Amino acid sequence: MSIARTGATPYYAVIFTSIRTSGDAGYGDMADAMLKAAAKQPGFLGVESARETVGITVSYWDSLESIAAWKRDAAHRVAQELGRERWYDSYKTRICKVERDYDFSRL
Amino acid sequence: MSIARTGATPYYAVIFTSIRTSGDAGYGDMADAMLKAAAKQPGFLGVESARETVGITVSYWDSLESIAAWKRDAAHRVAQELGRERWYDSYKTRICKVERDYDFSRL
Repeated sequence: MSIARTGATPYYAVIFTSIRTSGDAGYGDMADAMLKAAAKQPGFLGVESARETVGITVSYWDSLESIAAWKRDAAHRVAQELGRERWYDSYKTRICKVERDYDFSRL
Repeated sequence: MSIARTGATPYYAVIFTSIRTSGDAGYGDMADAMLKAAAKQPGFLGVESARETVGITVSYWDSLESIAAWKRDAAHRVAQELGRERWYDSYKTRICKVERDYDFSRL
């Protein structure tokens, strides 16, 4: 996991903030599989993720159409359903247009 | 830390993704102070944060003007400068318009 190299603005971000249920119940394997599957989708630009009390996963996309297609993906729909059944106490998904960005690197 | 209760769209998000240098060097105290100071700013709607390999802090605001005012805040400018000098190997800041959101809760 590193800082996503997302290229020129504008592009889109999906901020997924979640609180997990206790126990794994297949979550780790599915989360890995979904990261790999998302990375193969048309329009995927990158992803960043961290979890402490809350988990935050931000995926970056070239367009709202690419986000909508990934939301409809068959395997992803199964994961979404299992997420509501098993893995998450609560979550919030925010669809955003990234209007500006800037960065810093010591290197 | 919980999922931010941000109200109706549209609103704005600042996604700050960072990789820390090693050691604390005053980082923890400053991070706490900056969270408290941000929460007192006009237009602040909430914040979510987690760190593993990368740290992701998303703050939410009512307008681009509120974001710009917080960026100019005197104490925050000191923190930004120390961040580049001491605390971060690299970071990326993304200014976003949140166009849609939806949520789930088991409760």
